[in-house]
Parts: sequence; C-alpha cells; structure tokens
Amino acid sequence: MTLKVYLSGEIHTGWREEIIDGAAGLDVSFSAPVTDHDASDDCGVAILGAEDKKFWHDNLGAKINAIRTRKGIEDADVVVVRFGEKYKQWNAAFDAGYAAALGKSLIVLHGDDHQHALKEVDAAALAVCQEPRKVAQILQYVLTGNLPG
Amino acid sequence: MTLKVYLSGEIHTGWREEIIDGAAGLDVSFSAPVTDHDASDDCGVAILGAEDKKFWHDNLGAKINAIRTRKGIEDADVVVVRFGEKYKQWNAAFDAGYAAALGKSLIVLHGDDHQHALKEVDAAALAVCQEPRKVAQILQYVLTGNLPG
Amino acid sequence: MTLKVYLSGEIHTGWREEIIDGAAGLDVSFSAPVTDHDASDDCGVAILGAEDKKFWHDNLGAKINAIRTRKGIEDADVVVVRFGEKYKQWNAAFDAGYAAALGKSLIVLHGDDHQHALKEVDAAALAVCQEPRKVAQILQYVLTGNLPG
Amino acid sequence: MTLKVYLSGEIHTGWREEIIDGAAGLDVSFSAPVTDHDASDDCGVAILGAEDKKFWHDNLGAKINAIRTRKGIEDADVVVVRFGEKYKQWNAAFDAGYAAALGKSLIVLHGDDHQHALKEVDAAALAVCQEPRKVAQILQYVLTGNLPG
Amino acid sequence: MTLKVYLSGEIHTGWREEIIDGAAGLDVSFSAPVTDHDASDDCGVAILGAEDKKFWHDNLGAKINAIRTRKGIEDADVVVVRFGEKYKQWNAAFDAGYAAALGKSLIVLHGDDHQHALKEVDAAALAVCQEPRKVAQILQYVLTGNLPG
Amino acid sequence: MTLKVYLSGEIHTGWREEIIDGAAGLDVSFSAPVTDHDASDDCGVAILGAEDKKFWHDNLGAKINAIRTRKGIEDADVVVVRFGEKYKQWNAAFDAGYAAALGKSLIVLHGDDHQHALKEVDAAALAVCQEPRKVAQILQYVLTGNLPG
Amino acid sequence: MTLKVYLSGEIHTGWREEIIDGAAGLDVSFSAPVTDHDASDDCGVAILGAEDKKFWHDNLGAKINAIRTRKGIEDADVVVVRFGEKYKQWNAAFDAGYAAALGKSLIVLHGDDHQHALKEVDAAALAVCQEPRKVAQILQYVLTGNLPG
Amino acid sequence: MTLKVYLSGEIHTGWREEIIDGAAGLDVSFSAPVTDHDASDDCGVAILGAEDKKFWHDNLGAKINAIRTRKGIEDADVVVVRFGEKYKQWNAAFDAGYAAALGKSLIVLHGDDHQHALKEVDAAALAVCQEPRKVAQILQYVLTGNLPG
Repeated sequence: MTLKVYLSGEIHTGWREEIIDGAAGLDVSFSAPVTDHDASDDCGVAILGAEDKKFWHDNLGAKINAIRTRKGIEDADVVVVRFGEKYKQWNAAFDAGYAAALGKSLIVLHGDDHQHALKEVDAAALAVCQEPRKVAQILQYVLTGNLPG
Repeated sequence: MTLKVYLSGEIHTGWREEIIDGAAGLDVSFSAPVTDHDASDDCGVAILGAEDKKFWHDNLGAKINAIRTRKGIEDADVVVVRFGEKYKQWNAAFDAGYAAALGKSLIVLHGDDHQHALKEVDAAALAVCQEPRKVAQILQYVLTGNLPG
Repeated sequence: MTLKVYLSGEIHTGWREEIIDGAAGLDVSFSAPVTDHDASDDCGVAILGAEDKKFWHDNLGAKINAIRTRKGIEDADVVVVRFGEKYKQWNAAFDAGYAAALGKSLIVLHGDDHQHALKEVDAAALAVCQEPRKVAQILQYVLTGNLPG
Repeated sequence: MTLKVYLSGEIHTGWREEIIDGAAGLDVSFSAPVTDHDASDDCGVAILGAEDKKFWHDNLGAKINAIRTRKGIEDADVVVVRFGEKYKQWNAAFDAGYAAALGKSLIVLHGDDHQHALKEVDAAALAVCQEPRKVAQILQYVLTGNLPG
Repeated sequence: MTLKVYLSGEIHTGWREEIIDGAAGLDVSFSAPVTDHDASDDCGVAILGAEDKKFWHDNLGAKINAIRTRKGIEDADVVVVRFGEKYKQWNAAFDAGYAAALGKSLIVLHGDDHQHALKEVDAAALAVCQEPRKVAQILQYVLTGNLPG
Repeated sequence: MTLKVYLSGEIHTGWREEIIDGAAGLDVSFSAPVTDHDASDDCGVAILGAEDKKFWHDNLGAKINAIRTRKGIEDADVVVVRFGEKYKQWNAAFDAGYAAALGKSLIVLHGDDHQHALKEVDAAALAVCQEPRKVAQILQYVLTGNLPG
Repeated sequence: MTLKVYLSGEIHTGWREEIIDGAAGLDVSFSAPVTDHDASDDCGVAILGAEDKKFWHDNLGAKINAIRTRKGIEDADVVVVRFGEKYKQWNAAFDAGYAAALGKSLIVLHGDDHQHALKEVDAAALAVCQEPRKVAQILQYVLTGNLPG
Repeated sequence: MTLKVYLSGEIHTGWREEIIDGAAGLDVSFSAPVTDHDASDDCGVAILGAEDKKFWHDNLGAKINAIRTRKGIEDADVVVVRFGEKYKQWNAAFDAGYAAALGKSLIVLHGDDHQHALKEVDAAALAVCQEPRKVAQILQYVLTGNLPG
C-alpha cells in the first residue's frame, strides 16, 4: 500500500522536509505546491506576459498554480494542510475545503493560537497536529501499525 | 428557473440583507449559515453538554454547524463567499474550496486590500465583486438578462 | 430549507416519535424503515412465497426492505442512527456506514455503555447524542439558529 | 488482472492468514486494518497526547484508523467482512455498509448463529461464507475459473 | 415519500396496468417507455426522414426512444423490468443492466421458464416476481409497511 | 414527467420560439442562455467595471454567462444545440461537449452544409435535425408517444 | 496508452481468441468472464454448498460471477459484447447496459439476423461489427491510427 | 508526479511536436487523437464498409475516433486544445467542453484573431496561450517550479 500524501499550505518553514524525513523508509509518495514564493507569485506573467493590473497578474499565476494543486489533491489519499504563524493563508483553507469535499483524509497542522479560528477546518479533519513529527508518526502508524516510542 | 444561492462568510455586517434586498422580485432562494456569533460558537456544548477543553468545545459546535453549511452548499447553484475586513475567516475560504470542488458557481466578495491574499480563491470564481450590490446585479442579469441602469 | 431526515436503527422504543414531536413546527421531512418487527422479518415470504431455509427467508425480506432503506438514506440530508440496549443491530451500523460513504450528515444516538464499541461509527458522525430530545434540539438549531431555552 | 481485496472485521483469530495462504499464487493484493488491538485502541492518544474523557480518547484513535480503513476500502475491488463470535463488531458492519454504498463487491464471513442478525448485511453481499477457505476458493475461481477439488 | 417507478420491458400484455391498478392510492409516480410497438419502431424515420438501410432506420428510432428511456431510468427509485414469453427482449436486459449500474432498486418480473436464462439479471435484483400483483404488493409494503391479506 | 430542455447556440434567429411554440401543451420546461447579444457580450464590464484589454472584457462577461449556462445544462434532461449559418459558434460546440460529458440527451440542429464539420458533435447526439419543428416533434413523441401527422 | 478491453457475451465459439490474435502486438489488456460453461453455472454450489431450488443454485453462481464481471467492466476502457446465434443471452445485453450507464466505449458484435432485436443495444455503441476481425481492426486503428490493408 | 496531457484540436501544423520537444526531460505522458486527416475521416467505412450517405460515412468514423478521444480526455490531468487559423474546428471546442465538464485542467492555444469567438472556451481554461512553447513552459513550471529563462 503506497500512501499518496499532498502537503498543502505554509511555504516559509521546513515542515515538509521534517515530515518527509520522519517518514523515511515508509511507502509514501509525497507531492506539494511550488514552494518558491516568487516563482509562485509571478509564474503567470513570466510565461504569458505582463499585466497592468495586479488582479490579472495574480489571476494568471493562481490559475497556473491550480494545475499542480488540483492534480496533487485529486491524486492524494491524505492531504496535510499546514497553517503557519503569519499571513492570511486563505489558499491553505481553500485547499482543505477542496480536499474535504472530495472525501480525502485530511490532517491539519497548526499552533495552539490558531485553534479557535480553525475550528471548522479542524472539524473536517481526521487528525489535528501541532508538530510535523506527529504527522510522520501518523503516517508510520497508518502504514505499519507501529506507534512511536 | 429558481436559482439557489448560499451566502457564506463574514457575519458582522449586513451584506446578506443588501444582496437579498437587491434581488427582490427575482426567483432566488437564499440560504446561509447561522449568523448569530455566540450561538454559532456555543451550539455544541449548549446542546450536548460542556467540555473542559476549548478544542472539543469548538469541535462539537463546528460539526453541528457543518450540518447546515454542507446542506446549504450542496443544494446551491451559486455560492457567494464574503471576506470582511477582520479576522482570519478560514471557514469562508474552506467553504469556497468546498464549493469549488463540487463544481458550484462561485462568487467572491471582498475589498481591494485582500486582493493578493485571496488570489487562489478568486481564481476559482466566476465573479469577484467588491460590493454586495454587484452580486445582486449579477443575479439579476443571470436570471433576467437585464443589466443595471 | 426543508431538511430531509432518515431515522435508522432500533425499532423497539418510541425514540422516533420523541424526535418528531420535538421537531414539531420545523421544516423537516422524516422517513424511516418499516418498524413493525414481524412485517419487516417476514415481508419477503409473505409476498414472494415460503422458503425452506431461514437464510433465503431472511434474504428475500432484507432485499425488499432495502428498497425502502436505500431510498430513505439516499434522499436524506441527515441520517440519524439509534443503537438501543439490546440485540446486535448490525443493520444500524451498516446504515451508518452506507450514509457515511455517501457523505450524508450523520447523527448517532446511543447510551454511554456502547461508547467504546461504537467509536468508529461515532467518529464518522457530526454529532453523538444520548437522548432523542438532543437530536430534536440539533434539528431546531440547524434550521432556525435557536438554541434550547 | 490483479484483484485488490480488503479484509475487514474481526481481529482475534487467524482468518486473514487462512485466506492469504489459500490464495497463494493468485494475483491478489491484500490490505487490512491494523490488527494489533491495543495499538488500534490507543493510537490517537499515543501520538496526539492524552485525553481525560474516554470518548475523545477513542475518537482520536478511530479517526486515525479511518485513514487506513477508507484507503483500504476505496482502493479495493472486493471487501471481505468477517464477523466473529464475540463483541458487537459494529465497525465491521459499518465497513460493510461503507463498501456497499461505494458499489464494492462484498463477501461476508460468519458462523450460522449470526445468520438472522446479519440478514441486511448478507443481502448486500455477492457471497456469504462460513469458513475462510471458502473465500480463498472464491478468489481462485474469480481469477482463474478453477473450482475446488 | 413519493416512490418513482419505471416500468421497463415487454409491451404486448397489460402488466403495467395491473401494477398501476394494484398500487392505486399509494404515493407512486410511474413512468414507462412508449408502448405503441409501431410508433416505437418507426419514430426515427417518421420524424427525421426515411433511411434505405434497416440498420439506420432502427438506429434513428432507438436513439429517440433512448431520450425517454434514460430519463425514466435515471429519475427512478425503482426500475421494474418485465420479460415476456416471446421475443429476444434484449432492450429489457439492457435497461436492467443500465439501472443496476446506476444503483437503482431493481425488480425483475418473469415466468419460471426464463429462470435460468435470467440468472444474472435476477442476481442484480432486490426482488424477482412471477406476477404483476406481486410487484404492487412490494410497492405497497415499501410505502406503507402493510403486507397483503 | 416534466422534460427539462436547454436550448443552446445560435441567437440570431427565432428557432427557440419555433420549438417552444411547437411544444405548446407539452410538459416541457425550457431554459436558454441570455440571447441579447450586446448584453451577453458586455455584462462583465457593465457590472464589474471597465477593462482595458479586450481579453479581460470578454473574460469577465463569459464567466458571468457561465453561471446561467452551467445551471441550464446541469439541470436539463435534454440539451438542444443549434448551429446557425454564420460565425464560429465555438460556445455552441463547447456546450455540446459539456452536455455530452454529463450524459445529457443531446439533440443537434444544423443545416446540411455543416454536416461534415459537425460530425463529432453529431456522433454524440441522440438526434440530428435540420429544422426546429423536428425538435418539437421529437419532444412531443418523447412525452406522449404521438408521431407527427 | 494501454487500452483495457473487456470481452463480454457468447462463450461457445472462439471469437475472443480471434480478437486477441488480431490485436497481437498492440498495447491492449484483455479481460473476460469465466468461459467454462459448467464451471460458470455451478460455481456457487461447488464452493458454498448445494441448494435444493434451481433459483438459489443459479443465484449463488451468478453473484460470484458478478465479482469478476463487474471488475472487468468497471476497469475497462472498451467493452465488446458479442451476441451469438443461439440462446437468450440476456446477460450479454445486461453487460451492455451496465457498460453504457458507466460511459464505457461499447462495441457490439453480432450477425445480421439479430439486427432489429438489438437496435437499442447497437444505438448505445460506438461501433457495431459482424466479424471479430473488425473489432481487432478497430483496436489497431484506435491505438496506432493504421487502417487495415 | 507524472502529468498526463491530452493534445486536442488542429491537426495541420506541428504544434504537438513543439510542445513535446519543449517538454523533453519532463515527466509528462502525452496522448492525442489520430492526426492523419484521411484516416480519421474514413476509418469508419474502411473498417465497417461503405455507406451511401455522407452523414453515415462520417458518423461511423466519428464514433470510432471517439473511442480514442474519450480515453485520452478521461485519462488526462491536463487537456490542451489548439484552434488553428482555418476550418470550423467544432470538434476542438467540443473536446474543450467535454474536458471542462469532467473538471480537467484546460489550456487553450490560439491566435489573437480568435480571441472574441473563443471567449467562452477561454473562460473555462486555466491558461490561454498563443504559442506552443508557452504550453511547454507551463508544463515545465507545473512539474519543476522552474520558470523560463
């Protein structure tokens, strides 16, 4: 059983690597959005040409990123969504809603201070974690039945 | 043709009434989440009994609210999601993702300052508006073919 | 918004009436399986003719009952499943799994002594109640936003 | 043709091994839930931290187990559900209902004494067996056309 | 609960009327194919113009009839398929397969002499009857819980 | 049986009225896109504000029109697509493909000179007509079994 | 591109081998039902034990065969259904209807004398052939673009 | 992550090769319709025998081509549709609508002069390009996060 896991959300810390390292040796296939912030913001105009309005600049890019995001979520068995300390991160919540509507197993990862604001997202999840290594432990248990420690 | 419209998101201003008033006389059936903030926050423990941990207090409530939210989105032809000035509003973005995955026609409503942060949500929408009356104008056009003024 | 609610499970106490009475005045449309135990057990052979083997006697009946059960669950927005004190009630758990796979909003109703044995069923639910009147309170809140007195 | 078979239900006897041994040499890919009873019961708190209430202790675990269970059932061509002599086994019936709603080919495995109580589950099955070796014979026939003996 | 019932198959005897009469007073909505044999055979060329080849003559008609047949089956809760004494009736078996794949509740109606030849169709059904009045009795039981006599 | 019919395509002749008149007295519910060419072209900027680029001017409008178009096609039992003498009419062919993928019953209406160019569209249809009155005759036959003349 | 092809229907002549031979060298993966008539008829009782009534004897077998048939059809890109000269072959027409409802590409194979009786089945097909080698030619063209001779 | 890309539309220039060359080294699996114009037009009669009427000549061929087209689109993650300078190309728009209804990521490729006529098709796309190398750049970015030059 290969578990396909999509890692959505915050792109400014190394949480994805922590999970991937923690899952070393397990039969997991990871995917993720483009995590280069500048490339992600500007991919639309870099390929298709400049736009005067910021709205269309962003729109071109967001739609190209959606090709990768949708593929990642639709192919996944498990979607992990990480909310960091900063920014609005509405795309993360959007991905969580998208994954929930498709019936994907959802794992949400966030600090305690976001607990109340994320209650609707957490309520759709099969696990809510505060640390990336917990996600790796879940993947290990799901695939092998082995618990940490 | 009756158009079923679900009004998701911000609950602290009268934007829903503005749309409903603007759509007076049209064949639209509106639905919405519970917009009483306190009731929405506490419905879980008010019905099912107190929880010591805030996480479970919120979890009980969010799941009961989900009964209404899912029904509203799944029955809708059009889902309007409003992002206000304040708060994280991750539930609004979650609803937008949920609606998008189900193939609903999505209209997003927000001020200009949120434009960049909402680019992924906007990119999934069939219209992005800054004022509620624009949503009413869209509903009028969709149902009657008549444009404003 | 009419809420379609299917009342599955235990057929030996008046819990359905309690919920229906508690929801008086609400825009709810209830459905349920045939709750006459003897008719439900014997409907197959009563219509299609006797069978020597108990397995086929039961099989004929269970399949005819499935016409009603499937219709009720597939049409429902909310599926309430009640586990009583006695019997195996595997059909109740089967209905809960069937409803969960279809993405229905699931409410489970059972006493405390069944808590551990029903943990997988409860984990798929949006609410777990111990008393029928709690279900009626949930329906009232979902439809009107009003919490119990 | 590789047949994907999920083995759900009772975890206290060696029925899974009997089927897997009996299907040796066939193009079958088996999956199953975690069958270590203690790990399965406690996985939630072992990873995510202790809960005071038994309900939430169980809820955390059941949801993590659901990641594996749903993956197994949703990927499967055939879902075999075994009901043993003891316990309520509502999770087994829940899995059967879940599989039936997804249109999976269902095989139910139980002793004669449970026949009447399982009539609704059996009625949704393509085969009802009393012994694990019968399941292996069915898999052999389905894949090769060869009948036993 | 209104039950939508599509009556497919044989068009040379009055079995549809028998069922409809037997279900008088029940909340059932019946539909059926065009049962005028000549109109059904010739509708294509009568509307769209003559064809030299019998294959295209029949093809034009069968496709127009499919508009009604598909609508009837797709809207139905229950599909009843009747096999008469004569003719190949492959369209009846086709409708049964179509209904089965859509997860409709299937009732098959045929005489004893067709039992072996219809075993695959019967195996997909929730009831197999020999007489139209049995179908009416099933509909009565499903809707009211009342058994005959 | 009410038949829901969506009338897609060419907006410069009175073919819709011809079909609607021809179907007078039948239980048909018709819907259609906005057929005011100017309103349809400019609805986006009329409501949401001017765009410098023609591409975005058109994009805003096409997405608002898609709210109506998708609702019409998704609700329909039958989608009629008319190709006129002039223009590229790629939106008509797009609607036909959209309807085909959703399994709608498709009727295509066009003159003989477009036959070869429309062969892929026609091949997905249940009827291909040259005159609107033929579509009305098909609807009459499908609903009543009566043939013309 | 591997094309998955399911070969349904008549089991008394070598038409499957003709197609498989004709498709030698192409990237096709074939599957089929069990074609040993006796094994297919008796598999139920051979594995699960004798039944007194012919109906249940056949029912046990047909349901076990359905495990293979459904898997074959649901996995297929193309379903070929062959109607031979003899027997009712209702299972073949049932498979065709099942495949059509799932949106599979259907190829029907039969002699001229069955043309009228199979008109509804043929009308759902993308090709109707009289000889197995024509099916192989279609597969060759679909995969390589090369036409015969 | 292998990206499956279907290249639909215009068959008279080398745009497919340009994209395939531009995507060299990327994990992309391309598919496409038969691009031999004559074979594509005549495949029906070449295999199944001559037809007197052009309509049926074309119909036979279009349905055989649909076997490949549907397989390509349904398996794809991304559908690229190219509109050339000449011809009606309704099959290209039909494919775009088909892909959109299935929720595929759509990329449209056309020159500026077709912009207004393709506005509905473009509005359903995640990217609109004027040159094939832009499509290759999008594929590169989606798979690697690398932007051109």
